[in-house]
Amino acid sequence: RARELVSYIVAIYFALTFACFLTYRLLGMSLFDAVVHAMTTLSTGGYSTHDASFGYFRNPALEWAAVVFMMAGGIPFVAYIRAVKGQWRASARDVQVRAFLAFLVVVSLMVALWLVGLGRESFGPALRKAAFHVVSIVTTTGYATEDYSLWHSFAVGTFFALTFIGGCTGSTAGGIKIYRHQILWLTVKSYARRLARPHRMELVKYGGRIVDREVEASVLAFLAVYVGGFSVAAVLLTMLGLDLVTALSAAATALANVGPGLGEIVGPAGNFHDLPDLAKWILSGTMLLGRLELFTLLVLLDPSFWRN
Amino acid sequence: RARELVSYIVAIYFALTFACFLTYRLLGMSLFDAVVHAMTTLSTGGYSTHDASFGYFRNPALEWAAVVFMMAGGIPFVAYIRAVKGQWRASARDVQVRAFLAFLVVVSLMVALWLVGLGRESFGPALRKAAFHVVSIVTTTGYATEDYSLWHSFAVGTFFALTFIGGCTGSTAGGIKIYRHQILWLTVKSYARRLARPHRMELVKYGGRIVDREVEASVLAFLAVYVGGFSVAAVLLTMLGLDLVTALSAAATALANVGPGLGEIVGPAGNFHDLPDLAKWILSGTMLLGRLELFTLLVLLDPSFWRN
Repeated sequence: RARELVSYIVAIYFALTFACFLTYRLLGMSLFDAVVHAMTTLSTGGYSTHDASFGYFRNPALEWAAVVFMMAGGIPFVAYIRAVKGQWRASARDVQVRAFLAFLVVVSLMVALWLVGLGRESFGPALRKAAFHVVSIVTTTGYATEDYSLWHSFAVGTFFALTFIGGCTGSTAGGIKIYRHQILWLTVKSYARRLARPHRMELVKYGGRIVDREVEASVLAFLAVYVGGFSVAAVLLTMLGLDLVTALSAAATALANVGPGLGEIVGPAGNFHDLPDLAKWILSGTMLLGRLELFTLLVLLDPSFWRN
Repeated sequence: RARELVSYIVAIYFALTFACFLTYRLLGMSLFDAVVHAMTTLSTGGYSTHDASFGYFRNPALEWAAVVFMMAGGIPFVAYIRAVKGQWRASARDVQVRAFLAFLVVVSLMVALWLVGLGRESFGPALRKAAFHVVSIVTTTGYATEDYSLWHSFAVGTFFALTFIGGCTGSTAGGIKIYRHQILWLTVKSYARRLARPHRMELVKYGGRIVDREVEASVLAFLAVYVGGFSVAAVLLTMLGLDLVTALSAAATALANVGPGLGEIVGPAGNFHDLPDLAKWILSGTMLLGRLELFTLLVLLDPSFWRN
């Protein structure tokens, strides 16, 4: 079973990356760029060989292709495995994937309409720019084609908030992840219902299954440590002299493994190079904490774990 | 029992306010100022009749007096009632009050040492300024004697983070409150221990008593809605054109009923007057949501609550 699962995951990961490479190549990337960017798209890593990131290519078709493959990287492998095995319906009914895709569509449309309303763009380019950056941040990829923080203060607020969303669990994406937001929402809803009707049995259901209290506890503990780690990192960064926007967004983007933050230094048009060394150490720790999903690292730091 | 409790609370509230009034008057405030400021100190309201807030008086002794009475406002009434009834030990052992006081002392010292280290002040004035503003923000009072956001970026980060602390439950203070932070910490610690040793029974204990799972759920639900409300309010404010620091700090300070935020407009030296009208409506809703402790308001908004 485990071996079968691993072979499926490797095959799907390779197939998706190869499809992405072919698409990028056909749409005009050099061989090297296509290989590199296909690999950092599917891994939702977002590393580019160009300082201007995806903005270097100035190619709308390439940007739409990246949108599709970044989204592909943010979908759990289980959904692909089910689809490959012919269980299309189960994949299509996956509550996490549906919420993930619906969220991306709604937020991209919202941002696009706002850009149109500001008189900056016609609908086509506005939707492309909105979709590209919303998908890039939510899937924790981190590509950018331009400095969206210059659009309007609403973009600053929205993209900062999007840093706290994340892709699907079981995908290559990092961050808090859609699944945890859904469990949190269901937990709060069930608590509010219990408040209004204390004598009713309230079970939390997710995707048709009852959610174990231990799962609830794990999600809530994760979120608490996530917010705690974010706050500590941000305060430490302000102690090094960074302004609040840089400190908050650098801590958030490092913890979620996104990439760009906000402000002149760590923003989409900036570079972490200019940060003081100690800030880089703090952010390295933050990235590790985020990528290892907190408790893996915290358990290792607990001396009583090593005693047994 | 309930009637006795109410009489005790009223008597203690009145006695503390009167003691504060006398102290303020003896230290040089006018009769009117002493009455007004005593009332807004014990209620941790922080409203002042002067634009410069407590800075108007330029009187170190008055500032120290305010520190003491703001702290008094942030301590639960139960602790006073127990003390009045002669149960000194129970009050002194209250885990919330101890954590609250220890936190204020440690953070005030930290900020004071930082100010000394920056070469801005000698230790005496530094400790007074640090204690005054730390106590003012943590107890959600909101008095200020100067614009602490100009001290150093560390002060900006620290005071922003302090907005999320709050006083003790059962006191006049608002915000998240010490008790909830303690329950959150204990819950996360117990979860981490269960992870390392899945077969051990783990009970969460607070002040010697076992914490009910329902209490844990209520605290976690509160925190989730708190962070959610904060995020929504902040993003809405950026949509109105406010910069990120103003939007985040205005949302945080309104939700916690503190008072001053950060930045030129809503900072300790600024005024909410300059915000657009819609921002004032949003912040009014946020203040109400925070003061009614979220669920009181949310249950009222649930249509199924009214049907029964």
